[in-house]
Amino acid sequence: MSQTSGDVWSPVITPFGADLAPDRQRFVAHCQWLTSNGVGLAVFGTNSEANSMTVAEKQTLLKALVDGGVDPTRIMPGTGSCTIDDCVALTREAVDAGCAGVLMLPPFYYKGVSDEGLFRYYSEVINRVANSRLRIYLYHIPPVTHVPLSFELIERLRDAFPGIIAGIKDSGGDWAHTKGLTERFAGQDFAVYAGSERFLLDTLRAGGAGCISATANVNPAAIVELARHWQANDADDRQQNLNVVRDLFEKYPLIPAMKAATAYFSGKDAWRRVRPPLVELEEQHVSELVSSLKTTGFQMEGVGEASHG
Amino acid sequence: MSQTSGDVWSPVITPFGADLAPDRQRFVAHCQWLTSNGVGLAVFGTNSEANSMTVAEKQTLLKALVDGGVDPTRIMPGTGSCTIDDCVALTREAVDAGCAGVLMLPPFYYKGVSDEGLFRYYSEVINRVANSRLRIYLYHIPPVTHVPLSFELIERLRDAFPGIIAGIKDSGGDWAHTKGLTERFAGQDFAVYAGSERFLLDTLRAGGAGCISATANVNPAAIVELARHWQANDADDRQQNLNVVRDLFEKYPLIPAMKAATAYFSGKDAWRRVRPPLVELEEQHVSELVSSLKTTGFQMEGVGEASHG
Repeated sequence: MSQTSGDVWSPVITPFGADLAPDRQRFVAHCQWLTSNGVGLAVFGTNSEANSMTVAEKQTLLKALVDGGVDPTRIMPGTGSCTIDDCVALTREAVDAGCAGVLMLPPFYYKGVSDEGLFRYYSEVINRVANSRLRIYLYHIPPVTHVPLSFELIERLRDAFPGIIAGIKDSGGDWAHTKGLTERFAGQDFAVYAGSERFLLDTLRAGGAGCISATANVNPAAIVELARHWQANDADDRQQNLNVVRDLFEKYPLIPAMKAATAYFSGKDAWRRVRPPLVELEEQHVSELVSSLKTTGFQMEGVGEASHG
Repeated sequence: MSQTSGDVWSPVITPFGADLAPDRQRFVAHCQWLTSNGVGLAVFGTNSEANSMTVAEKQTLLKALVDGGVDPTRIMPGTGSCTIDDCVALTREAVDAGCAGVLMLPPFYYKGVSDEGLFRYYSEVINRVANSRLRIYLYHIPPVTHVPLSFELIERLRDAFPGIIAGIKDSGGDWAHTKGLTERFAGQDFAVYAGSERFLLDTLRAGGAGCISATANVNPAAIVELARHWQANDADDRQQNLNVVRDLFEKYPLIPAMKAATAYFSGKDAWRRVRPPLVELEEQHVSELVSSLKTTGFQMEGVGEASHG
């Protein structure tokens, strides 16, 4: 059987300095560490605090990555915004840089908007970017946006923009929904990604492409290992081991917890910093998290070292 | 009894051209029409489609208003954003222009954030703007943001930034909540605004300041009339009449409905245009709305005329 390997991407956590400005050097180093572990770079996602950053900051970070020698076909920036013009600006930059694609939130301020309105939003963005190399991965994350993407909308977008609407990330947290997406859409021309490695094995078995998962920031090697060997006899055991680690992180607010672990295992305390309205993990919880991780044999080998190029 | 008049503000609807760019001239003219009817300009609010616009577009419109001779003490721009830097940029501009204050959404991407995180967000903005002339009106609109502002947060902010935290707009749609705000906070140094003229009379009787209401875009004179004469014998009748008009608009998506009415009564069809993900009101609904409005004697006298300066 020649089934291909599953694909793992990480919504890369963003390092901030004491003034809360993004730390380009630490960002590029973390991205290089992730790619050296086989993880693609879904930079500017929910877990990247992307909506807490300006468009200009994201443009600067993307440029730093490409200038830093990171392969753009392993970069899939989040470019969705409430504002068409901001979305178009960042999407254009990603296409011009040769990125694999972009992960695109729906506009998330207004609630109860119609499929027609969302269709017009995505259409307007696509028509303005006006580049056949554009690949859009839709981003379904109703617990955060409260703006779900219906199957009808996805179908209408695929019909209108074949080749450009290339897949979806399902961060709804509901396996039945992800399964439904794979049954209706998964295939050569449409990649269904689970929003958590908790559903990685199920997604691959259902014909999906892999996962784009927060904790791929901290547990990349083990997640990639399962994605590569998902048809091996020990796949269910591997999945179980991934879930144990995920459970430990999910005891706390996920972004501060991942940043705390990265700070601990890299020895770079500045990693703990988050932008408001998020709050960094308190000391006691950091100790609890690190202790519990260590009992599982968890490590982040090589994280925070100067170069992984 | 020397009770002062209630205060009415409108989250000004934004006119767009065929390319969806803001139409500065129509914008300034509509603002002048509103002020000539006694309504203050809460530009860049929810009903302004402000989060569908870039920071630069809002800066340009604000400048056009001030350059157009509009009294800045009657302007209260919405400046809240998911991004501290974007919020600070627009807030600074508003303070420098001498605006009455700013209406500030909490960061609205992440859900379930803590009061501590929201406190840090507002504190960071205030500290960066660093201007004692700053007046912040908090914007509580949980049906849209899903990020409520608790009484404890309001109190903590007032204690930390006396004079700067100047009031709140309550768009929760729950009178008990607005009443609770007036009981706990309303007074000389804290203005409680209802988010709809439906609660205007109740708010003024409870010691609140007035309302900041969408439909003040289309029914300004009558709303201001009640605010000025809320202690008159016919106040309840006036409130009832306002509610009848509000009901008619609320049969439809509010922003497209207000724009459709403005288009009809100004004779400028371009007013119907909205930015995605919103969708303009369909023809049949426009006819229904206009007919039903006319049966009440509703009019928008002078709207769309060249100058109200």
